[in-house]
Amino acid sequence: MKRRWSIGVVLFPDFELLDVFGPLEMYGAAPEHFEISMVAQADGAVASRQGPRSLADHPFGATRQYDILLVPGGMGTRKEVDNPALLNWLRLQAAGAEYVTSVCTGSALLAKAGLLDGLRATTNKKSFRWATSQGPKVNWVMQARWVEDGRFFTSSGVSAGMDMALAVIAKLLGPETADDIATWTEYEWHRDAGWDPFAAVHGLV
Amino acid sequence: MKRRWSIGVVLFPDFELLDVFGPLEMYGAAPEHFEISMVAQADGAVASRQGPRSLADHPFGATRQYDILLVPGGMGTRKEVDNPALLNWLRLQAAGAEYVTSVCTGSALLAKAGLLDGLRATTNKKSFRWATSQGPKVNWVMQARWVEDGRFFTSSGVSAGMDMALAVIAKLLGPETADDIATWTEYEWHRDAGWDPFAAVHGLV
Repeated sequence: MKRRWSIGVVLFPDFELLDVFGPLEMYGAAPEHFEISMVAQADGAVASRQGPRSLADHPFGATRQYDILLVPGGMGTRKEVDNPALLNWLRLQAAGAEYVTSVCTGSALLAKAGLLDGLRATTNKKSFRWATSQGPKVNWVMQARWVEDGRFFTSSGVSAGMDMALAVIAKLLGPETADDIATWTEYEWHRDAGWDPFAAVHGLV
Repeated sequence: MKRRWSIGVVLFPDFELLDVFGPLEMYGAAPEHFEISMVAQADGAVASRQGPRSLADHPFGATRQYDILLVPGGMGTRKEVDNPALLNWLRLQAAGAEYVTSVCTGSALLAKAGLLDGLRATTNKKSFRWATSQGPKVNWVMQARWVEDGRFFTSSGVSAGMDMALAVIAKLLGPETADDIATWTEYEWHRDAGWDPFAAVHGLV
């Protein structure tokens, strides 16, 4: 039984900090099970929407296949939906990945790449209209903390990525491991994928 | 009335990802009010405990005074309690800062620097014994999501930093702004500083 997974995290200018580092906190609490790599169009620093810069470990051109993809959202997605290099990398990696996951408007990138066509998915609730316009053939779910459809996990906005990551961990390693990590990080996690008070706030339900 | 604050975030090897980027997500949602700088002993990349590397914007030697300090925790604190350069930087900055804040075992660094003597403070609940041993003259609080004492805010482990940051924002800009940011980030925040189920998990109450 497989017990270790590589995670490829795609970075782009103006990515949202917590979309990336919330899930990575959860996966990173189990280094014996998850190995994290940061990937970007080019080597070097990538500035988040909030300012702080992260370093890419590998450029898109590196040939490694990751087991799990993590695609964050953020204002940068508005530009990246028109970036063929990023969309092609997503298609290439998604073809061989065991799981493809996104946080917030990261699902707009997956949708624009055509990877969510015919699948159920969700996204940020405040940016729901824009994000869903990137994938007219996707079955968008208006109220969900995250949506699992086959090997695709898409989460709602920003903080929801932490719950989705714990759900992925629960699926791969059992709910006890997810609970242990939540306790270790002193995080009260939402185990119910349907929990979503923010859909109502933004008039979606 | 003051409406903009500079935030100096101290980075060190093996810092905990969410200790840094959870609070920065919250402050970063209001760029008109908060300006974020990453500070480390030297310029360049600093690797987190989980692997991903962040770039420092300024070295300790830069002379700027920050309005708000953010001191993360993580396994790296075990070494940094014996790093005079970091402890001196904390003392120097704390002397002039409006607010001094820490997440998780970051309070062990503040305690070791002597900055919390005679004050109430909290820390990570799993590492409570080690962290509190760094400050025998601190009035350590065993059950708290965060503790406010004068201009010092110290939070419990990892995720608690997000709630503490929202509490700081509520204090500076009003509770409506904190609530707006929590809604924008789809984060269900714990407004009660006394909420802490993790103290019992670790046998502290």
